[in-house]
Amino acid sequence: MLRTPGPGYSILVKLEIPNKPGMFARVARAIGRAGGSIGSIDIAAFRKETLIRDIVINAANLETGQRIVDEIRRVRGIIILNVADRTFMVHRGGKIEIKNKLPLTSRDDLSMAYTPGVARVCMAIHENPASVYDLTIKKNAVAIVTDGSAVLGLGNIGPMAALPVMEGKAMLFKEFGGVDAFPICLDTQKVEEIVRAVQWIAPVFGGINLEDISAPRCFAIEERIQARLDIPVMHDDQHGTAVVVTATLLNAAKATGRDLGQSSIGVIGLGAAGMALARMLMFRFGHPVLGADIAPDALDRLKAAGGTPSDLKGIMAGCDVVIATTGVPGLIKEGMVRKGQIILALSNPNPEIEPERALAAGAAYAADGKSVNNVLGFPGIWRGAVDADVPRITREMLIAAAEAIAAYAKPGEIVPDPLDKALHRAVARAVARVALAQGLNRDDLTGYFD
Amino acid sequence: MLRTPGPGYSILVKLEIPNKPGMFARVARAIGRAGGSIGSIDIAAFRKETLIRDIVINAANLETGQRIVDEIRRVRGIIILNVADRTFMVHRGGKIEIKNKLPLTSRDDLSMAYTPGVARVCMAIHENPASVYDLTIKKNAVAIVTDGSAVLGLGNIGPMAALPVMEGKAMLFKEFGGVDAFPICLDTQKVEEIVRAVQWIAPVFGGINLEDISAPRCFAIEERIQARLDIPVMHDDQHGTAVVVTATLLNAAKATGRDLGQSSIGVIGLGAAGMALARMLMFRFGHPVLGADIAPDALDRLKAAGGTPSDLKGIMAGCDVVIATTGVPGLIKEGMVRKGQIILALSNPNPEIEPERALAAGAAYAADGKSVNNVLGFPGIWRGAVDADVPRITREMLIAAAEAIAAYAKPGEIVPDPLDKALHRAVARAVARVALAQGLNRDDLTGYFD
Repeated sequence: MLRTPGPGYSILVKLEIPNKPGMFARVARAIGRAGGSIGSIDIAAFRKETLIRDIVINAANLETGQRIVDEIRRVRGIIILNVADRTFMVHRGGKIEIKNKLPLTSRDDLSMAYTPGVARVCMAIHENPASVYDLTIKKNAVAIVTDGSAVLGLGNIGPMAALPVMEGKAMLFKEFGGVDAFPICLDTQKVEEIVRAVQWIAPVFGGINLEDISAPRCFAIEERIQARLDIPVMHDDQHGTAVVVTATLLNAAKATGRDLGQSSIGVIGLGAAGMALARMLMFRFGHPVLGADIAPDALDRLKAAGGTPSDLKGIMAGCDVVIATTGVPGLIKEGMVRKGQIILALSNPNPEIEPERALAAGAAYAADGKSVNNVLGFPGIWRGAVDADVPRITREMLIAAAEAIAAYAKPGEIVPDPLDKALHRAVARAVARVALAQGLNRDDLTGYFD
Repeated sequence: MLRTPGPGYSILVKLEIPNKPGMFARVARAIGRAGGSIGSIDIAAFRKETLIRDIVINAANLETGQRIVDEIRRVRGIIILNVADRTFMVHRGGKIEIKNKLPLTSRDDLSMAYTPGVARVCMAIHENPASVYDLTIKKNAVAIVTDGSAVLGLGNIGPMAALPVMEGKAMLFKEFGGVDAFPICLDTQKVEEIVRAVQWIAPVFGGINLEDISAPRCFAIEERIQARLDIPVMHDDQHGTAVVVTATLLNAAKATGRDLGQSSIGVIGLGAAGMALARMLMFRFGHPVLGADIAPDALDRLKAAGGTPSDLKGIMAGCDVVIATTGVPGLIKEGMVRKGQIILALSNPNPEIEPERALAAGAAYAADGKSVNNVLGFPGIWRGAVDADVPRITREMLIAAAEAIAAYAKPGEIVPDPLDKALHRAVARAVARVALAQGLNRDDLTGYFD
């Protein structure tokens, strides 16, 4: 749920094309006929009477990709030299690596970075443990921890198959937050073992980002790890998602002139994201949120958090704002939509109701999960948390992050562009500002807001 | 023990010096008087009547550094603007970082590296687990695991204070082996908990390098972790050191015309390094090694491994080759040295006997631990192990590594220059060649030896 949409499938085709007018146009027509969209086109080599071209082609899915290749093959005179799946090319050999910040080209370099020079640095930390934040990677290092139990919408595929996602997440951490995150995929799915594993590996890290751990286990895991550590622990599928959805909701309310403090809000689907969202909205708007879930224990948890158990029909009939995070496409029928409702149907790739249908049925505002992307939140949240060196990430910090994201959207946008790095800096500052106000910053943040 | 020697202490002094002839010479004389050695000298700024200079000064230790600053302060007309400890400058903020291998500048990049594209890569691994070696960082990733119980010669300083060493080690892994190593400092020193922690974090890694774990715990920890995993586990303080010492010994024997197969060999100090070395030499030369240690259980372990328990006097009186790894400076007296002995007194920073004294007392060959550096071994050993994708590192691979290192020394050198990257490639090839011969390579190594 709630991940980036985009070209699902992209291929790189290497062709040998006769060097004659009109030949490439035939290839282009074949690609278009099969449903492909041409991306970059390069000339890889000149031969005597032919050209070797690399063509990137985006397709909606695997089948379309195959059809495109078949259509190209039918163009007379064209030879297909190679077809590569661009997504697999991106992942081959891994997507992140370790980089040394300093050269090691002399014996002097060795003796300062390693022995014997390093011994004094070790002893400085031994004598003053807080200096580990200054003298090592700890301050800027975050572990991305998963047990592979709820990876994307793929379910429990285990720690090894989850690794490509965690590496991708580490890339986003670095690119948008400047945070050095490293994937830790745990070969256990027992709650107590996960808690202990994270506790044991914690010394190297300034924060723990939990990822793709299934509900309801994720609630206890996060809570128990945080209770044992003095570094922040955040399950992104809960809180990162709640931040981004709240930002979306704030802007949807603004666009429709609705006062969320006076609105009844319902959340359908109380998994990791839905439950955290319900909690955040109750804390922010000060009144109970209605919740629906097929699992009775989810409703019990909502009630314990101050919410009101309900059901799909009750929420659709009674709420001004409906947010669905169920993973069930088409769950909301047009007949259930009430006039003037705000409906965020966020499951990916297919929402609980298509926004167009919801609007046609009378909704004042409707959106799906395609633009509600976690990458809007976690890089800035973590940047701010590690910069301020907080022991935990508070609800107030998360709400400040949501408001910063909402405020950053340009007129006409509901959410801002996640590729805009200034957005993430704004989120980081918002989080750090709350840390300072709450007295939770262990770094003094001198000059941070200049 | 057995780590790089070099300038123990280096400072960067920023001075304001009157722009008159002879002024800098006065500063240089003051530095020399105090025992400092001048490194690079830069002009940082020109002022009206003065120059601002940055001077790197190497000193033997902290006290000398202080004396140098005091002497400079006495030179009339000189103003000391700043004194920085260069070693601490090197470590500030950490020495390694995460680097993305690909840009993330468009929505297309996001959707291939992360969602939705990554889902197909996850499923490919889920369906064919072996493909994790091709599609993620696993193949080239090694965890550097410590519990901080025996860090350098500093003792049990704990996991946090050990981190600067592990980061430095990660730099060496990358620079000389091209291996992406990440430090894991465990907040537990219980054997069973260390074993379980490593087992749980293993999915991300292609190998586990154990580091700075105290003996005798290190023996059981290594053995039990290896028994649970299908990736290689190597305690570098045992096997990496044994490889480098064996390489040194091979060349010392060559230089003195001694046949090690016909020589009696004694190892004084049966800690992690001494025990592994004794085992390696027995395996390589086919006859028992004499061992001495103050701990009775160390002698029991030696006996169980086929060695002969002895003591300091017995070894000095009866062995042709003596290797000491005790950490006790001056343990070997000149009167104990027998004519024609090879003596490697390897404890750092101060050996069991100074080589000059051993030679004067009749040794045929003597060396201390200053040039016997682990960085000669582990980068190439691990490069070869991950390239061949072996399930474990065998004794034969380690001996091949030792022989490759010994063979790489230039005429007149006992060990080669660790800064020479071709050395590490030679070690890697030697390890991979044995993997192939033993049928342990899970990568087919096509083209690897070309």
